[in-house]
Amino acid sequence: MNAEFDLIRRYFSRPVAGALLAGGDDCALLLPQQQALAVTCDTLVAGTHFLPDDAPADVGWKTLAVSVSDIAAMAACPRWATLALTLPEVRHDWLAAFAEGLYACAKAYGVALVGGDTTRGPLAATVTLLGEVPQQRAVRRNGARAGDELWVSGQPGRAALGLQCAQGTLALPDEARAACLAALHRPQPRLALGRLLAVRATAMLDVSDGLLADLGHLLRASKLGAELWLDALPLAALQQMGASREQAMQAVLAGGDDYELLFAAPASLHEEVRQAGVTLSLPLHCIGRCETGETVRLLDGAGQEVALGAFAGFEHFPATEQEGA
Amino acid sequence: MNAEFDLIRRYFSRPVAGALLAGGDDCALLLPQQQALAVTCDTLVAGTHFLPDDAPADVGWKTLAVSVSDIAAMAACPRWATLALTLPEVRHDWLAAFAEGLYACAKAYGVALVGGDTTRGPLAATVTLLGEVPQQRAVRRNGARAGDELWVSGQPGRAALGLQCAQGTLALPDEARAACLAALHRPQPRLALGRLLAVRATAMLDVSDGLLADLGHLLRASKLGAELWLDALPLAALQQMGASREQAMQAVLAGGDDYELLFAAPASLHEEVRQAGVTLSLPLHCIGRCETGETVRLLDGAGQEVALGAFAGFEHFPATEQEGA
Repeated sequence: MNAEFDLIRRYFSRPVAGALLAGGDDCALLLPQQQALAVTCDTLVAGTHFLPDDAPADVGWKTLAVSVSDIAAMAACPRWATLALTLPEVRHDWLAAFAEGLYACAKAYGVALVGGDTTRGPLAATVTLLGEVPQQRAVRRNGARAGDELWVSGQPGRAALGLQCAQGTLALPDEARAACLAALHRPQPRLALGRLLAVRATAMLDVSDGLLADLGHLLRASKLGAELWLDALPLAALQQMGASREQAMQAVLAGGDDYELLFAAPASLHEEVRQAGVTLSLPLHCIGRCETGETVRLLDGAGQEVALGAFAGFEHFPATEQEGA
Repeated sequence: MNAEFDLIRRYFSRPVAGALLAGGDDCALLLPQQQALAVTCDTLVAGTHFLPDDAPADVGWKTLAVSVSDIAAMAACPRWATLALTLPEVRHDWLAAFAEGLYACAKAYGVALVGGDTTRGPLAATVTLLGEVPQQRAVRRNGARAGDELWVSGQPGRAALGLQCAQGTLALPDEARAACLAALHRPQPRLALGRLLAVRATAMLDVSDGLLADLGHLLRASKLGAELWLDALPLAALQQMGASREQAMQAVLAGGDDYELLFAAPASLHEEVRQAGVTLSLPLHCIGRCETGETVRLLDGAGQEVALGAFAGFEHFPATEQEGA
């Protein structure tokens, strides 16, 4: 759109520290200090990832936060972002609020917005985020070993309950509803935890597709299976919020948009990992153990296997999509 | 979409050289060799930047080429790209052709596709491209000095005529039509030229909004005005293709999507710059000169000023957009 330059100047030109050049040229110029760059890219589309009438400040926050979460999951440090924003029309109130949310997230996680593009079209935002990490400290998905413990941070499942509240399919008490909506709209990437785990975790990723689905990614990359312990899953907090046990199970195991960290670490580091959670005042749940094989088994307190088939999200390649024309 | 991982595996997972890690993890990991990184980001939206029934291979090529052009305009070397692709539905024929075009451009300019995101929504593609450049060799927009000559590469205006052909508002002979459509759909970023100009040009950008509009960006950044020489504008080739003199003027001065390089260089380097064009078999046109002041004057062969007001594209901040709600 012709007003592109003006929109960038008005809304996305706050002072940038840590870049040679940001804005007003063909490219931004950056001076990385560390050995390796971590790069991630995420798009939020109106109607798919958020609702057109969601609070624009929340959309701005989340647009960046989901990428910060990927950087956290590599144990990297976020540095520079570009924003590609596609707008059906120029609505200054929406843009101002979106920019507020985006810059709030940028400030919270030390990100400099160094460039981007503004175009006319259906509402969507793409962030590409660059982080830095010493090459040997980056934690990939494929390093887990049989016997490693599996951990998840914080409280997975709240975002899924928040989505159900927003869609009107779940009623929760006001305070619980607010907490779940906040988890959905203002995810808090576990950046400090990711960096603490740099030399401890053998494999790590962030939970965006649901715990079971993302566990599947980690295990496939590491060529392992796992057992999960039903009694160790963080269901209680969701039940205390008013969810049924079944709803809590579904939300924890298959709910998306959590942006918690899921990681494997040697059992010998159990106490050290636990202590990291204490240091950060962030609950860390040891929910299972990697094992050889290709399957994920959920075991109850008596060691009996509980069927996992009921938890949607685990099958993330539905054949109709895969082969559809 | 749930089939995201499968789409990436099928279409966007070709072998990557020059990255520590690309695909299949939270981030790509890169090892820059040069001091500074150049970063640029561009979105192409169906209906705004291309037509939904444009050849998908062309859309794939152009999606990357427009960013390569920005890297070229910094005198940098393109290295790594992320692709955020939003699709209304999974159409394998479209995706296969889009990927062919994208990878053809990547191969032509030495770019490795290292990551991205695939989402469901209205058709659009965003590329963020990282390039490398020794810090002191990057050419910005703001370094032009009064007396510097102004040059433009290749043949600006062909893409604008191509767009008119595609829209049915201009009829050209078959060969000319094909050349103009190729310029529109398969822009050839001037990467080799940009790098040759690294220590010669004082300011440079790529012509994407039209020559006059982009000249305005360069001059504002450099706090200068300029005179342009009518007789030096590359109109003849467009007229030989069948455009009227008026159509050729409009296309050269105000047509968008050219992706030629517009640059300022000291008059003392005139012969050296000319020789660079000979070396690359790429016409370089010396079209004017920077001068103090804030205005751009177009002068005819007798030194008389020719009105520029008629050339749309120069006014790129229409008030209705700027203040629109």
